[in-house]
Amino acid sequence: MSDAKIFSAKDLLAGPLSVVHLGLDKIMDGAQAAGVSFVEVDFQPPAGGDPGRMQALRRLAEPSLASEIESANAEMLRRFFASSPHLMGVGVAKDVIPGMEDDLFLHAGPPISWDRMCGPLRGAVIGGLLLEGKATSPEEAERMAATGAVRFEPCHHHQAVGPMAGLITPSMPVWILEDQGKDGQGRRSFCTLNEGLGKVLRYGAFATEVIERLRFMADVMAPILAETLAETGPLDLKMLMAQALQMGDEGHNRNRAGTSLLIRALAPAMVEVDRPAAQIRKVLEFIDANDHFFLNLTMPMAKLMLMAAEGVPKSSILSVMARNGTDFGIQMSCMPGRWFVGPAQAVEGLYFPGYGPEDANPDIGDSTIMETAGIGGFTMAAAPAIVQFVGGSAEDAVATTRAMGRITVGRNPVWVIPAMGFLGAPTGIDLRLVNEHTLLPAINTGIAHREPGVGQVGAGLTLPPWSCFHDALDAFVKHCQEV
Amino acid sequence: MSDAKIFSAKDLLAGPLSVVHLGLDKIMDGAQAAGVSFVEVDFQPPAGGDPGRMQALRRLAEPSLASEIESANAEMLRRFFASSPHLMGVGVAKDVIPGMEDDLFLHAGPPISWDRMCGPLRGAVIGGLLLEGKATSPEEAERMAATGAVRFEPCHHHQAVGPMAGLITPSMPVWILEDQGKDGQGRRSFCTLNEGLGKVLRYGAFATEVIERLRFMADVMAPILAETLAETGPLDLKMLMAQALQMGDEGHNRNRAGTSLLIRALAPAMVEVDRPAAQIRKVLEFIDANDHFFLNLTMPMAKLMLMAAEGVPKSSILSVMARNGTDFGIQMSCMPGRWFVGPAQAVEGLYFPGYGPEDANPDIGDSTIMETAGIGGFTMAAAPAIVQFVGGSAEDAVATTRAMGRITVGRNPVWVIPAMGFLGAPTGIDLRLVNEHTLLPAINTGIAHREPGVGQVGAGLTLPPWSCFHDALDAFVKHCQEV
Repeated sequence: MSDAKIFSAKDLLAGPLSVVHLGLDKIMDGAQAAGVSFVEVDFQPPAGGDPGRMQALRRLAEPSLASEIESANAEMLRRFFASSPHLMGVGVAKDVIPGMEDDLFLHAGPPISWDRMCGPLRGAVIGGLLLEGKATSPEEAERMAATGAVRFEPCHHHQAVGPMAGLITPSMPVWILEDQGKDGQGRRSFCTLNEGLGKVLRYGAFATEVIERLRFMADVMAPILAETLAETGPLDLKMLMAQALQMGDEGHNRNRAGTSLLIRALAPAMVEVDRPAAQIRKVLEFIDANDHFFLNLTMPMAKLMLMAAEGVPKSSILSVMARNGTDFGIQMSCMPGRWFVGPAQAVEGLYFPGYGPEDANPDIGDSTIMETAGIGGFTMAAAPAIVQFVGGSAEDAVATTRAMGRITVGRNPVWVIPAMGFLGAPTGIDLRLVNEHTLLPAINTGIAHREPGVGQVGAGLTLPPWSCFHDALDAFVKHCQEV
Repeated sequence: MSDAKIFSAKDLLAGPLSVVHLGLDKIMDGAQAAGVSFVEVDFQPPAGGDPGRMQALRRLAEPSLASEIESANAEMLRRFFASSPHLMGVGVAKDVIPGMEDDLFLHAGPPISWDRMCGPLRGAVIGGLLLEGKATSPEEAERMAATGAVRFEPCHHHQAVGPMAGLITPSMPVWILEDQGKDGQGRRSFCTLNEGLGKVLRYGAFATEVIERLRFMADVMAPILAETLAETGPLDLKMLMAQALQMGDEGHNRNRAGTSLLIRALAPAMVEVDRPAAQIRKVLEFIDANDHFFLNLTMPMAKLMLMAAEGVPKSSILSVMARNGTDFGIQMSCMPGRWFVGPAQAVEGLYFPGYGPEDANPDIGDSTIMETAGIGGFTMAAAPAIVQFVGGSAEDAVATTRAMGRITVGRNPVWVIPAMGFLGAPTGIDLRLVNEHTLLPAINTGIAHREPGVGQVGAGLTLPPWSCFHDALDAFVKHCQEV
């Protein structure tokens, strides 16, 4: 039943209908062979029918505890929605990211050592060592990485996020965001600047052109963007995201509107930056050539909002989902910093010409912070055009957004989907609902080649592994007993 | 029944349903009073039940003539779709528009004399006389206009179009478009640059700020845009329109995506134009401040495509719809240049604070060229967010696009609506189908204040008057007998 669809009443009423089917595959085989039309309903027993987890869910449903969890979730969402991430400027990683050191490389997803890293992450580390001038050849870089010349820690341990490999090395320029909400307390988050498409470090490529592009970004683009932002003042990213959702972006795999709105916001002030016009033109052309440029702003936006909502005891809402290409990890608001980890899954999608599933690395990157915040797979209905990029139909996109409403506890009042009657983005993934409905968060993502040095080979949809959600459920029951 | 809705099967199945109603109003009054829920189906007799028009339609449906009309319509659409409008540059009206003279003012809609002009068009003429330096006060301008100091002709008689009042005076800068299709033959169209929102000439305002803005546009903006386009080369407007439809624009009343994409296309080259950076910044800020900036490019784009499709004998497809604020006029591809005119109608919509229907001028402007080309009211489903601006619900937007499919003969292969399964925009308004289904083209538009000098007071939806379509039907039957 892995490819079963969620059907709405509309689907059920739309055509001639003879049989409604709830998972009895053998019966349906016969019916189908006989030419009977049928509708497959995605029926799943609660907690996948597992007795232990069913008992855990029953315990969490006891009235007094359930009421405490509801209050905690309301508080978690209140903090999330009250957060107000603004783009403040651009800095250098080692100067602005807390705990960043000269011998530290940050990466996407939960913690991982070199020996367990996937190809694209290894490729990015090799590129990072070349970029930092610590190695002069890929071979030397690989030896250094294997023998502990640099330390590895997750971006998420340093208020940062990174798409795909998510590598942040000390000299890289990073966006600086600040929570300007009433309770924001100057809280900050960070992300690298998006490198563009094709052969790029975040997909594990480390050829000379990749390193040269990163140097251009640090030497030319970052200072121009920093001076531009000094002139415009802080940009309200939540408002830009709201507009992009009304303009066909889902905010993870489609960022054409967001990138366009960012260019509109920056271009006038950029014109007057005291740099050669040819350099400013190159920066505008660089951004214009890459519709994902906006993603590296919305990822730290989502991170900042979820940071504001961390540390609410007894909240059953997720605060992190992230992958390093080997493992998929989640965190809960009520247990900040604690990872629940399982194997990263394959991505189902469309491949660039010349590539196929055999080339694909498992799911990778911190960009699932978007789905954790109710964007991406959760707002697919806002971006029907995305099905040309990730597969499926416009109806599938609406069905996915509707299904995500079943595992979330809130609706975003600002990020709304016009085509669904201005319905708010389904927000706040509830660990209990995921287990109860046996329904995983839907994730839109890019596909990296499994070998270091190649790059992106496609885009599509994926799911987290179940084990994260099973382990988190056990821990959450204990947490509720202990606090 | 003027506010009757078209219901789809989905609507009919969506709720509890007791009575289906086909126009028997008195019966329904009783049912409604009794609290019975009901659905009103927009049943209309063919040709509104008029015996003369029913006979005309029967004549056009005779097999040999019907087949000739079908072939003609296919040829009309072939030419329309083959046309390839590109933005080439910016020029001065009197230098580039064929037949433009120093004493000639062009206006929106069918021909009209000063004494029959509505308030906003009179206001624009007064502003035009002030701008051209022909008058030094509004009073003097009004006297001059009334005594024949300038001549008035429609934009449409000069390969041009203009939004709202649509005034083009000799010194105004205009966009220059060229058909670069295989059969384009260097055909050109023209439109003024969009002035922005608030008090603007096209809504009949002529205060000092209006005239000063027009001077800035001529002296600073036009040269910078011209130099920018000389650097970028021709811009493919059909492709930009296709992208904008995937980004929540319907292309008439919502142009946020198109304007954003235009800024992306122009900004990099504009940075290097040899003008003071402060001026370039001001131009970018001017465009960024006005989401309708793109409309003045898509209107001449639509005009150019329809010009390519003019002059196909026996085609029953419309090639022009336009209003001057007093009259609404249409033209047919098979009878180029011949106007069929009726009274401009009221616009139903949402008003800016402080204004209401009593302030509104009837429907005005050449912007209905968008609907004539299958955009605007015809692609409302692409822009569910527009209902916040013009009223209604997202479902209404889809219903409108679906209804327009009933009076059109083609689907645009390039301008598609992702949310409707990438359905092509309904294209080619067929005079026969309009009369047969008693269903008028749906138009999205702005609302001008009825007094000269005020400006825009709202936005909404409107319909053409029936008389244009009745007169055109009579003439079309004669045309088919004669050619």
